[in-house]
Amino acid sequence: MTNSELSQTLMERIDALALISEEPGHLTRTFGSPAMRQANDLVAGWMRESGMTVSEDAIGNLTGRYPGSDEDAKTFILGSHLDTVRGAGKFDGSLGVLTALACVQYFHSHKKRLPFAIEVVAFADGDGVRYDTTCLGSRALAGTINADDLQKVDAKGVSLAEAIRAFGGNPDQLESAQRDRQQLLGFAEVHIEQGPVLEKKMQPVGIVGAIAGRTRARVRFIGQGGHAGTTPMALRRDALVAAAQFILAVESCTRYYPGLVATVGQLDVHPGGSNVIPSEVVLSLDVRHPLDGARGVACTRLQETAGEVAEKRGVKVEWDIIHDAQSVPCSRDLSAALAKAARTHIVSVVELTSGAGHDAAAMGDITPAAMLFVRCKGGITHHPDESVLPGDAEIAIGVLIDFLKILANQQNPLPTKHRS
Amino acid sequence: MTNSELSQTLMERIDALALISEEPGHLTRTFGSPAMRQANDLVAGWMRESGMTVSEDAIGNLTGRYPGSDEDAKTFILGSHLDTVRGAGKFDGSLGVLTALACVQYFHSHKKRLPFAIEVVAFADGDGVRYDTTCLGSRALAGTINADDLQKVDAKGVSLAEAIRAFGGNPDQLESAQRDRQQLLGFAEVHIEQGPVLEKKMQPVGIVGAIAGRTRARVRFIGQGGHAGTTPMALRRDALVAAAQFILAVESCTRYYPGLVATVGQLDVHPGGSNVIPSEVVLSLDVRHPLDGARGVACTRLQETAGEVAEKRGVKVEWDIIHDAQSVPCSRDLSAALAKAARTHIVSVVELTSGAGHDAAAMGDITPAAMLFVRCKGGITHHPDESVLPGDAEIAIGVLIDFLKILANQQNPLPTKHRS
Repeated sequence: MTNSELSQTLMERIDALALISEEPGHLTRTFGSPAMRQANDLVAGWMRESGMTVSEDAIGNLTGRYPGSDEDAKTFILGSHLDTVRGAGKFDGSLGVLTALACVQYFHSHKKRLPFAIEVVAFADGDGVRYDTTCLGSRALAGTINADDLQKVDAKGVSLAEAIRAFGGNPDQLESAQRDRQQLLGFAEVHIEQGPVLEKKMQPVGIVGAIAGRTRARVRFIGQGGHAGTTPMALRRDALVAAAQFILAVESCTRYYPGLVATVGQLDVHPGGSNVIPSEVVLSLDVRHPLDGARGVACTRLQETAGEVAEKRGVKVEWDIIHDAQSVPCSRDLSAALAKAARTHIVSVVELTSGAGHDAAAMGDITPAAMLFVRCKGGITHHPDESVLPGDAEIAIGVLIDFLKILANQQNPLPTKHRS
Repeated sequence: MTNSELSQTLMERIDALALISEEPGHLTRTFGSPAMRQANDLVAGWMRESGMTVSEDAIGNLTGRYPGSDEDAKTFILGSHLDTVRGAGKFDGSLGVLTALACVQYFHSHKKRLPFAIEVVAFADGDGVRYDTTCLGSRALAGTINADDLQKVDAKGVSLAEAIRAFGGNPDQLESAQRDRQQLLGFAEVHIEQGPVLEKKMQPVGIVGAIAGRTRARVRFIGQGGHAGTTPMALRRDALVAAAQFILAVESCTRYYPGLVATVGQLDVHPGGSNVIPSEVVLSLDVRHPLDGARGVACTRLQETAGEVAEKRGVKVEWDIIHDAQSVPCSRDLSAALAKAARTHIVSVVELTSGAGHDAAAMGDITPAAMLFVRCKGGITHHPDESVLPGDAEIAIGVLIDFLKILANQQNPLPTKHRS
């Protein structure tokens, strides 16, 4: 099969998967749902068509295995997740699973074995909307899943353990899903960029240098309420004006740390009357950077700034860290191989940071991991307007196939010609 | 009775009224409620004890009349409202009604008639939480009530017309409540300041120069959403950062217009996820100034600023005026008389602007009106912590009595002594 045919099949499969949803009218496919069962079964069929043996592990990850030329060969894993957010686009996750599948289709149709086995894993939980805990699937493989998570309940009161059991998995044996790192060569994930960088640079694909670390904080400004008509400006301690000054400081701060992104996405005003001076504001702060040091320094600076703003205005401030995730650098060797493969398809290879978390970050705990980003229209994601060009998907397939060929050559180098 | 005795009675009556509530545990007494019926009946009893004849008009205003020395005498009205906001303090409204009553008590106990009748009116609706339309009571007296308001329904679907009828009034004859302006000498209202100015200036009372005009606008910033981790800062069109810049501009703007107060009290962020760039922010803007011209210029400048902030950030802005009320200057003559009366009780007489609306503003449409503000602790209002010192109430009573004496002298000047 040609890359063009593979890309056409991939786009048809993307559309077929997009129809499998637990909510009518839009795409929602959460962990352990009947829609996930249907999706796993559909993808399992495609895996078998491409000469793979199929299995499902204790947490519900679907794995197709395409054996290597040698029975004792190690395994290279490709994949992404099949679950989605609510009202999702059709490429997030699915593109990675189906690009991987297209590569195996390619080798299978050319009756070619590599000196390692390829496994395509369709992770059961990447976006994690049902239990508010992302990458359960890849963390099960890496052996980093938190047993406490099993007690978490969804909106209907169903625990994660019950959901795994209902799906056909076994919450008591999650350790059986963990892979032996000695048997693994590495992991690669294709994913839509979910941002506008590749589109701005007019590049169909890009190599991910690192998955950014992330700090999530809750910041609370406590001022003093009062009547909006009767309290002179000079006597006010307005929590919202303090918060506004902080929000502008967050934006300014990013100028001093290239690569830093910082966002205030939530903001609640109390008491919230049009004629009442805000007495309290609670806001969310999300800070990401590929270097943990830079993120740490920026967060410290922002906390100091919040304190300074508050002090000048006679307002109090509280600062709580909700979540703190280290950055995960991608494997230099695998990324170099990906870049080499990419250079045969495109002129300039962009390296960029992933601001979002991915299964590759979890897999990085157990084996070298790399990521290939694919341009998406307008950077739009988690929305029905999420869009990838068929030509870009074709390039991604080509890069991934060539990447595997490069790895195969590294594993099994051609005999050096004797000099004459 | 001495002013001290009158003040003691007043504070006891404040406490008695505070117990009359439609909700257990806190003070809530809305227009037309059974609690209002109880409050009107209690105050009617006190009016009769002070030698007044009592009546209730078509909208439910309670009026006690203390006749003048001459049957044909004109009438001077004193009063404020008996309704409250939800979870109210006990002084807002009640203090004005009971200070007025204390004056009549004084003249009655001294068997003194003035050359004009005094009426104490306890308005049925000053804070207007039930129908979101303030000063229905005083507007009925002034003849400025809007007939369309009768169709308004409360949270339970009861129309204003039904509520008036249930209370014993007559919505079809509201014009009967209108007073003949030829028969009126003026109106004076005592009210808690509801702000911190008198406390800061260490003055128990102050004269209100004008009731500020008010503009209420809804401002909407429309940017573009996006993933908080994957969208570089330079490519963002964050609606909340635009709103934050505007909020600081609102604060700065007040420095250029002395006396201007401007408040953003409500702010909603969409979509409101911690990892999503805000695509839309809707906020409330409340602008007040004693001079309508200054308020108009400031509002125009703020609208321009919103447009400039939005344009620089590639964000759209929408600006809707929700409410626009002109300022009401108090009567110069009555205010001068109030100030003269105040000078016998305190050293320095402060004139200040009322940022909040009051019955006096509605009464100003039909007769000269004046207001005396009483210091309240910390400027706190519309809250159970609302607090007035008994000594301040005593001074307010003294000032109001002397004010009426000054008016009496102006009406009925002492015969000029012949020069010897």
